[in-house]
Amino acid sequence: MPPEKTAVEMHPQRWGDPAAAAPLPEAARGLIEMAFGLVERPAVTAAPLPAPAIEPALLAGLRDLLGAEHVLTDDDSRRLRTRGKSTPDLLRARAGDLSDAPDAVVRPGGADDVAAVIAFAVEHHLAVVPFGGGTSVTGGLAARRDGYAGLVSLDLCRMKRLVDVDPVSMTATLEPGLRGPEAEALLAELGLTLGHYPQSFEYASIGGFAATRSSGQSSAGYGRFDSLVVGLTVVTPNGPLTLGSAPANAAGPDLRQLVLGSEGAFGVITSVTVRVRRLPAVKLYEGWRWPSFSAGAAAMRALAQSELLPTVIRLSDEAETSLNLARPDEIGGSGAGGCLMIAGFEGEREAVAARQAAATAVLTGLGGEWLGEEPGLAWAHGRFHAPYLRDALLDVGVLVETLETATFWSNAERLYADVKAALESALGDPTMVLCHVSHVYETGCSLYFTVATSEGDDPVGRWLTAKAAASDAMIAAGATITHHHAVGTDHKPWLAQEIGPVGVGILRAVKAELDPTGILNPGVLIP
Amino acid sequence: MPPEKTAVEMHPQRWGDPAAAAPLPEAARGLIEMAFGLVERPAVTAAPLPAPAIEPALLAGLRDLLGAEHVLTDDDSRRLRTRGKSTPDLLRARAGDLSDAPDAVVRPGGADDVAAVIAFAVEHHLAVVPFGGGTSVTGGLAARRDGYAGLVSLDLCRMKRLVDVDPVSMTATLEPGLRGPEAEALLAELGLTLGHYPQSFEYASIGGFAATRSSGQSSAGYGRFDSLVVGLTVVTPNGPLTLGSAPANAAGPDLRQLVLGSEGAFGVITSVTVRVRRLPAVKLYEGWRWPSFSAGAAAMRALAQSELLPTVIRLSDEAETSLNLARPDEIGGSGAGGCLMIAGFEGEREAVAARQAAATAVLTGLGGEWLGEEPGLAWAHGRFHAPYLRDALLDVGVLVETLETATFWSNAERLYADVKAALESALGDPTMVLCHVSHVYETGCSLYFTVATSEGDDPVGRWLTAKAAASDAMIAAGATITHHHAVGTDHKPWLAQEIGPVGVGILRAVKAELDPTGILNPGVLIP
Repeated sequence: MPPEKTAVEMHPQRWGDPAAAAPLPEAARGLIEMAFGLVERPAVTAAPLPAPAIEPALLAGLRDLLGAEHVLTDDDSRRLRTRGKSTPDLLRARAGDLSDAPDAVVRPGGADDVAAVIAFAVEHHLAVVPFGGGTSVTGGLAARRDGYAGLVSLDLCRMKRLVDVDPVSMTATLEPGLRGPEAEALLAELGLTLGHYPQSFEYASIGGFAATRSSGQSSAGYGRFDSLVVGLTVVTPNGPLTLGSAPANAAGPDLRQLVLGSEGAFGVITSVTVRVRRLPAVKLYEGWRWPSFSAGAAAMRALAQSELLPTVIRLSDEAETSLNLARPDEIGGSGAGGCLMIAGFEGEREAVAARQAAATAVLTGLGGEWLGEEPGLAWAHGRFHAPYLRDALLDVGVLVETLETATFWSNAERLYADVKAALESALGDPTMVLCHVSHVYETGCSLYFTVATSEGDDPVGRWLTAKAAASDAMIAAGATITHHHAVGTDHKPWLAQEIGPVGVGILRAVKAELDPTGILNPGVLIP
Repeated sequence: MPPEKTAVEMHPQRWGDPAAAAPLPEAARGLIEMAFGLVERPAVTAAPLPAPAIEPALLAGLRDLLGAEHVLTDDDSRRLRTRGKSTPDLLRARAGDLSDAPDAVVRPGGADDVAAVIAFAVEHHLAVVPFGGGTSVTGGLAARRDGYAGLVSLDLCRMKRLVDVDPVSMTATLEPGLRGPEAEALLAELGLTLGHYPQSFEYASIGGFAATRSSGQSSAGYGRFDSLVVGLTVVTPNGPLTLGSAPANAAGPDLRQLVLGSEGAFGVITSVTVRVRRLPAVKLYEGWRWPSFSAGAAAMRALAQSELLPTVIRLSDEAETSLNLARPDEIGGSGAGGCLMIAGFEGEREAVAARQAAATAVLTGLGGEWLGEEPGLAWAHGRFHAPYLRDALLDVGVLVETLETATFWSNAERLYADVKAALESALGDPTMVLCHVSHVYETGCSLYFTVATSEGDDPVGRWLTAKAAASDAMIAAGATITHHHAVGTDHKPWLAQEIGPVGVGILRAVKAELDPTGILNPGVLIP
C-alpha cells in the first residue's frame, strides 16, 4: 500500500492531485478503442467565471467577521469550489461551464466563526454551502442561488484540529475540515486509527463523512461512518446543538442520526466525536475466485450471518472481473475469470490469523478458490486510484460514471438485474455495465455499478437519462437510492419516493425549525 | 432457565402474573427487618374508578369503527391500562388512586383500524395512548388529558402476527402487540430468535421495544433493539410512513432512528422488521469474581475494546454483590464477596467455545476469579424475577425503585459516585444503593441503580425528590437521563437539558408535523 499522503487541492476539472494523474494503460486503450473508438476531448481551459453576484458591502461585512484573508473572491478559489466530482460535474467543468461558482469563499477558524457567518447570512439572506473535501458526486455542492443576496462557499479547511482524544473510552473529537489522510496521520501519532477509507479518502473530510453518512472500503470491519460517531456539535441558524451523552441511550429519538446525513441543510457540523481503534499490527488482503456473482454473494452472506466478516470484503461481477477493475493499474489486462473477491483482515496478528482461518473455512466450504495475497495487494495498491482513470477516459470521449444502491439479501439478484438492464437499455450499444458488492451487512448488501459508454454529442443529457432509468429501477425494486453517495441535488426525486410524503414532511419540518430562512445549502437534500 | 411462558394480564397493582408472585425470602426478610423495620402496607382493594369522561356518542363512533367488542369501558379493562409499573405507579395504584385511568380501551385489529381510530381521534380531539405491554417505568402511559374530549388507551393486543420471515435476509416482520415470549415462540418454530431479553421481557411488547429504544440483557451479543430494527411501518395523524429500504444507506438522515424512541408521540408503530438469528445451540452462563467494581468494569472495557464481548455481560458492585441481587431467589443470603460478574455465551457449540476461551484469557489475565457456571445459572434462573421482589418489599413498607443511565468509560466512575451520593443524600439513612453494569459498548457502559429505603409517610414524594437529585447528578456529569427506560413523562425535564433547546425544538417540530393537533400521547416525551 502506498503511504497515505496529505491532500492537496484537486484540479478543478479532474479528480485529485494533477501530479498523480496517469494516462490510460495501454491494454485499456486498446480495449477502449475497440469498444468505443477514441475521440480526443480536450477540456476548455481558463473559462471565464461569472462576475461575483454579491454586494461589496456584504463582502466587507464578511471580512469584518473573519478577516480579509479569509474571504476570497479570486477566480482560482471560486473555481475550485464549483460543484463536486460527479461525471456531469466534470463534464460541465471541462466544457467551461462555471455557472455554479460561488460568489465568495469564506474560511471560518472555528465554531464561533461559523456561527457568526451563519448569523450574518440569515440577516442578509445569503446562501451558504458548507465545503469540506469537495468530493460530492451527487450535486451536494450545487445549491440553488435564486432569491438569495449571494452564494458563499463555507470552506472548513481551517478547522483541522484533533480536539481531544479519550484513550479510556477510545474516542477522538475531530474538526470537520480534516481530510481523511490528515485525520489518520494525527491519530496514528497516538497509535490510533479511525479506519474509514472510502474511495474519496485522500480528499474527503471528516465533516463530509458525517454529513453524508459515508461508508468506507473497510466498513465490514470498522463500520460505516455513522456507526462510528458517538457525538456531534452543530451550529444551526437556530442555535448550537450538542449531541452524544453516551454510546447509546433511550432518551427519545437518536438525534445524532438526524444530523448524520443532513448534508449541510440543517446546520454546519463543527466537531465529530468518533470511536477509534488501535492501529492494526497486520493488514492482510487476499483474493478468492467464485464461479458466479451469485455464488460469491452467497458466500459473503454466509460470512456476515456467521459474524465472520473480514475487515474488507468486496466481490466483482463477471464483467468487472474480466476488466480487472479491481486492479486499476492493469485494467483491460487478462482477468482472473469467474468473479474476483477481495478479503482483507486487519488487527492484531493472532486475531487476524484466527479470523482468516474461520473465514477461509467458510469460503472454501462454499466452493471459493483461494488466489493468494497477490490480488489483494493489487487491490490495496490501487484502492483510491479509480477516479483518475475516469479522467483519462473522459479525455478520449468515453463517459464513465458510477452509481450505487443497497437492499436486503433476498432482493439483491433482482436489483442487480433490473439496474443493469435499465442502464443498458437507456444507453444502448456500446455500453459496459460492471458491478461489485463492497459493503456487506447481516441482512443485505450494497451494489456499486460502474458504467462506460460513448460520450456522444450531449454526454450530460445522455447520462442523466440513464441515471434516471437506473434510479427508477432501484425504487421500483424497493431498494435505496443511495448506499453511501448521499442525496445532494441529484437524488432528491427518488429520495421523495423512498421515504414517501410523510418522510419528506419530517425533513421539511426539521429544516424549517433549524433553518427557517433556508440559507443553508438551499435545494440540497430536502425534496 | 425456566421455559418462556406466554404472558397473561398483569395484576393492576403489582408486577406480573399473580400466580408467580412469591413472598420475601426469609433471609431477605431478616435483613429488611434489621435495616428498615417491617411495616405491613396492604394495598387498597377495589378502589373506585373515575366515571369515563367521554361522550357516549364518541364511544358509539369508536364502536362503529372497530365493533362493540373492541371498545371496552369496564372497570377491569380500564384499571389494567392505568399507568405503568414504576414504583410511583404501583404506590399510587396500591393507594387506590386511579385518576389516570383511560376513559375507554380500544383494540384495533390492524393498521387500517389504527388509522381509523387516529382519524376519529383527530376529528373529535380525543387523546390516544398506545398500549403494548403496559410495562413503562417512566410514566409513558400517563398522558395529559386536560383539554381533550376523552382519553383512550389504544391497546395493540390484537396485532400479534408474525407477518413475514425472510430466511435469506434473516429478517422477520412482527406486529407490535406481540409480547416478548410470544414473538420468541413464533420465531422458535422456525429455528430463529430475536434475542431481545429486557427484564420486562415476559410482558413488554415488540411495539414497546421499538418505541422506547429498549435494550435487553443479551445486548452485548444480540445488540440493542434499535440496532436490530431494519424496517418500520407507522401510522401518523399525517398519514402512513414506511421506512427501511436497505440495512443502511446514505439517503438523508436515518428516519428509522427518529421513530425508534418516539414513545407513541409521533405515530403508532404497526409493524417492525427486525434482524433475527438462528436459535443458539448452546447457552452457557458463568460467574467471575473481581476485587472491586472498577476492576470488573475495566475488564468489561477490555473485552469490549478487544471485540471479545460475550452475549451477556453484567457486573454488580460490592453492595449489590453482598446482597445477592443477581440471584433474586437468594437475596440477602451470603454473597460471594468482591464484585460478581456474569458472562454468558450463546451460539453454535464451537463458536461459543472459542469465544469463551478468548474471553477467559482476557478476564484471567486481568485478575478475575472464575466461579464456574453455578452463579451464571442462578442469574439466568432469576433473570426476570426482580420486579416480583419489589412488590413483596412494598408490602412491608420498603420502597424499592431502579434508575439507570449511561456514559463513556472515562466518565463512569464519576457518574457512579455522583448518582450514588445524590441518592444517599436525598434519602438519608437507612438507604441501600446498589448498582450494576449490564450494557457494555466499546466506548462506554450503562449504570443501573437499585435503591431500597423506608417508605415513610409520603413514599411517592420521597422518591420523586431523590429521583430528581439523581437525575440532576446524571446531567451534571454529562451522562444520559436514560439508557433503556425511555423518557415518558418522568424524564422530560432532564431530556430537555440533555439535548438542549435546539434538540427540543427538533422534537417539537416533528411532533407538530406528524401530529398537528397533538392527540398522540399528549405530555409524553416532548419537553
